[in-house]
Amino acid sequence: MAKRFQHVAIVGKHQARGIRPILEEIADFLMRQGLDVSLESETALNTGMTAFEALTTEELGSRCDLAIVVGGDGTMLGFAREMAPHGIPLVGINQGRLGFITDISLEKFQEALAPILDGDFETEKRSMLEGSVWRDGESIFDGLALNDVVVSRGATASMVELRIDVGDEFVANMRADGVIVASPTGSTAYALSAGGPIMHPSIGGWLLVPIASHTLSNRPIVLPDTGEVRMEIVAGRDASVNFDMQSLASLLHGDRITVRRSAHQVCFLHPKGWSYYATLRRKLRWYEGVS
Amino acid sequence: MAKRFQHVAIVGKHQARGIRPILEEIADFLMRQGLDVSLESETALNTGMTAFEALTTEELGSRCDLAIVVGGDGTMLGFAREMAPHGIPLVGINQGRLGFITDISLEKFQEALAPILDGDFETEKRSMLEGSVWRDGESIFDGLALNDVVVSRGATASMVELRIDVGDEFVANMRADGVIVASPTGSTAYALSAGGPIMHPSIGGWLLVPIASHTLSNRPIVLPDTGEVRMEIVAGRDASVNFDMQSLASLLHGDRITVRRSAHQVCFLHPKGWSYYATLRRKLRWYEGVS
Amino acid sequence: MAKRFQHVAIVGKHQARGIRPILEEIADFLMRQGLDVSLESETALNTGMTAFEALTTEELGSRCDLAIVVGGDGTMLGFAREMAPHGIPLVGINQGRLGFITDISLEKFQEALAPILDGDFETEKRSMLEGSVWRDGESIFDGLALNDVVVSRGATASMVELRIDVGDEFVANMRADGVIVASPTGSTAYALSAGGPIMHPSIGGWLLVPIASHTLSNRPIVLPDTGEVRMEIVAGRDASVNFDMQSLASLLHGDRITVRRSAHQVCFLHPKGWSYYATLRRKLRWYEGVS
Amino acid sequence: MAKRFQHVAIVGKHQARGIRPILEEIADFLMRQGLDVSLESETALNTGMTAFEALTTEELGSRCDLAIVVGGDGTMLGFAREMAPHGIPLVGINQGRLGFITDISLEKFQEALAPILDGDFETEKRSMLEGSVWRDGESIFDGLALNDVVVSRGATASMVELRIDVGDEFVANMRADGVIVASPTGSTAYALSAGGPIMHPSIGGWLLVPIASHTLSNRPIVLPDTGEVRMEIVAGRDASVNFDMQSLASLLHGDRITVRRSAHQVCFLHPKGWSYYATLRRKLRWYEGVS
Repeated sequence: MAKRFQHVAIVGKHQARGIRPILEEIADFLMRQGLDVSLESETALNTGMTAFEALTTEELGSRCDLAIVVGGDGTMLGFAREMAPHGIPLVGINQGRLGFITDISLEKFQEALAPILDGDFETEKRSMLEGSVWRDGESIFDGLALNDVVVSRGATASMVELRIDVGDEFVANMRADGVIVASPTGSTAYALSAGGPIMHPSIGGWLLVPIASHTLSNRPIVLPDTGEVRMEIVAGRDASVNFDMQSLASLLHGDRITVRRSAHQVCFLHPKGWSYYATLRRKLRWYEGVS
Repeated sequence: MAKRFQHVAIVGKHQARGIRPILEEIADFLMRQGLDVSLESETALNTGMTAFEALTTEELGSRCDLAIVVGGDGTMLGFAREMAPHGIPLVGINQGRLGFITDISLEKFQEALAPILDGDFETEKRSMLEGSVWRDGESIFDGLALNDVVVSRGATASMVELRIDVGDEFVANMRADGVIVASPTGSTAYALSAGGPIMHPSIGGWLLVPIASHTLSNRPIVLPDTGEVRMEIVAGRDASVNFDMQSLASLLHGDRITVRRSAHQVCFLHPKGWSYYATLRRKLRWYEGVS
Repeated sequence: MAKRFQHVAIVGKHQARGIRPILEEIADFLMRQGLDVSLESETALNTGMTAFEALTTEELGSRCDLAIVVGGDGTMLGFAREMAPHGIPLVGINQGRLGFITDISLEKFQEALAPILDGDFETEKRSMLEGSVWRDGESIFDGLALNDVVVSRGATASMVELRIDVGDEFVANMRADGVIVASPTGSTAYALSAGGPIMHPSIGGWLLVPIASHTLSNRPIVLPDTGEVRMEIVAGRDASVNFDMQSLASLLHGDRITVRRSAHQVCFLHPKGWSYYATLRRKLRWYEGVS
Repeated sequence: MAKRFQHVAIVGKHQARGIRPILEEIADFLMRQGLDVSLESETALNTGMTAFEALTTEELGSRCDLAIVVGGDGTMLGFAREMAPHGIPLVGINQGRLGFITDISLEKFQEALAPILDGDFETEKRSMLEGSVWRDGESIFDGLALNDVVVSRGATASMVELRIDVGDEFVANMRADGVIVASPTGSTAYALSAGGPIMHPSIGGWLLVPIASHTLSNRPIVLPDTGEVRMEIVAGRDASVNFDMQSLASLLHGDRITVRRSAHQVCFLHPKGWSYYATLRRKLRWYEGVS
């Protein structure tokens, strides 16, 4: 039988203390499974691991057929965004408390990875947001986001006012601390803190969530992901926009942030039997009542 | 040019005082446009209008190609549910404050209807929920809902506990005053009061909204509408279930409520230029801040 | 030095399996501390314990100077309400997961109780709600509540409409699933599920919390506890009212529920160093983020 | 009969266009009532009105026995804070949409003011927050706030982490966009947008409201106003603090913001029959349901 995967890349949260022996153990395991193993170049550089070929994300994208990411949800988010154009499936191994998307614990990585390498896994696709910032008719910033695009008031401004349009329809003028456009993946991140609902990854939609809106009836909205979402800065000095973690500050009145569905999707592999809802139950502690 | 519509039915909120002259004025207008006009039989009976042919919903479904509903959102919801299997498009004329789905004011009905009758309109499809209640393996109730299916605690019970499954996945056990499964149409009704988001009608999803959940992290969830939602009564005496307005009380432990997407859709016609978001702005008064 | 306490009563959640040996162990410990020990009569009857004098709550109120309640928050709430007129301080021992007000674990009851019996404790007073239901000018029900007084819609009614007055001022007409008037103690119970804030026990106020209000801007209100709160049933069939757990159903239009501050307070004793906020942190798991 | 007031000061939102003739009309009316009339010096300077004695707030505080503020809630908040140490009662006349605290409309100012000047009014006292910012043991900022003291994350930081203490008790570590400490007056301002309850002005408490808290169970808390509230910056770069509108940016880890009840209160005079709840109903549009 043909092998399911042949060349695996390892990516590590290289700032983490003690990560090197962990990565070596994982690499060792993968080689014993008969796989070619490479290291993402930043990971190689920062850990000083030289026994493996170091590949840039570009090279990695064209040559590997699986990437194993070792770290938390933040590490995965950053790498998944970079790899999205290459379409390589990703597996997350978590050293600490399991995350929403990094759901294999380091302690049991061998028994979780072995079946995945044999082709026994659940595939999960996640949509991504692609956005631009426009000033005077020109694009001054482009970005991808797996979680969300957030426009926020300046630190000393009392609010930002945004004009929101979707496709060719006007939605509302919102005066608030900010407005979040979140993907299903982002629905369990910042948008949840701001009062948004949880959105299953298979939903073809975005969440539009105002943060501390001045208008009490400005509730979160589930928007179709087929049209472009536009947010224009109408009032409020020194607003900023964030694409996942990347920020652009000092937005001006008239600046527009446009968000649309990226042509790329992120593809996560999970152990057979993995369940999105089980992850929610675990992360949100639904098994425990208050009283 | 062939006429867009030939035979129009009129349905009225027949309990409303003073409805007869209004219906007569509308019928008169329609006849002057060269259309055949019939009355829904209950409307005919209750208003005593005998000048028009009275049709049962069954007859109306097979013979008319447009229905004009005069009343509020409640009247429309009830009639739309009945007519859903027949696929006839519906237009709503509202005597009072405009609703979410009845958006033509009585004062201006002529100038709004004329272009619609000429074929100049926006078509909007709304998905419906189809549900059953199961006891000991047998279905004891079937119903359709355009807004929502709601399971509620008994009046003197402190809560109801429901086991929620979607497709073949377990979601959560919820202890709450109740749980709402709402369509996009229902997202601006009871679900909104219970803390749910607004959901655009084009979204292929349902809202699952717990009411006063004992677990603070049990937030509203946007579920795909492709799988069946199941709610089993685990604890709590005398729970009940509502499909829009129809109720079934005295549910027992072990009873299951199943909800799936109906094969039928409701089709509303709106004046050209109609906008879902404009309706939200008007109904939720987004143009007005608090301060 | 004079003893701080001389005669202690023990009250147990007598429905709980295996409670008898636990109560015997506690009683034994108290006697070894040189105290007179009695059993609340229902507890004695249900456990079959005959070695101790059994006292009615009335007798217990006049003869004992401390009561030890073994069970959860529910057991404590019920007994505290009964004992309120007698002013005896209460200590709670919890067999299971610690509650908001029963905060001594069974495992460590000796080391927690010993200093309390020596007079080394924190005293905490909790205000109570006293309410009546009025029909045609006559009181048809009186009750005390340590948590809350709740008016709820009937099971098959879509809402209840209440006219709310405080003192001689009209507050609002509320259309909702129900309205909660909660004490500070009740702020972490049902009111919290319905979206209310947490209220420190030293605050001289009640929470008025609408449940799933039709009007989105009908937010929880912190009311002064100096005036009487009145709720009149304006619309909605078959509404009911609950005082903590006691229910009165089938309320009629025009029925009024009045709530005022009880002249009695409940007095809890806690181990030295006890902190209200520590209890919140533990019960609401504030030490744990979502991600 | 002795006059109730003798010397009235007028304060205007002097940036507002067309304010001068309005202030002249009010001054004229007051003189006709036999009162001495002065102008607040900034108002005099900016409007160019020279017919009246111009007084600094200091002089005004010692010589006048009533101040009439013409503008919106913002103008009133700013002036009320300045006048708080002097204890002069304030009356608000609003040119535009009535506010929460400026409740006399310009159109009817004569019929509203006349009885107040005759001593026929409702007095309402509002508590104020007094705060300081401490760095390395030294106070680097002091301020008064009638609405709230707010600590916010820096514009490009994902959150601020604050350690909250009240009196000598630790409350919680909160990771959020920010934390609001609001007075009853502030409960209908920013705190309401962030999910806090409404708090009646007679309540002796503050609201502690986290903004978009990472921990879903971090709910608003009603704190007693007897102890000092302390917020220490634990994590998050470039946090800032606002006292009503005054900002201090670039807070450092270890900086502490302390908030306590000011010895001063603001005293508003309202027309007889004025009601706090009527103001809520009007401002929050409680008379109107959604559907």
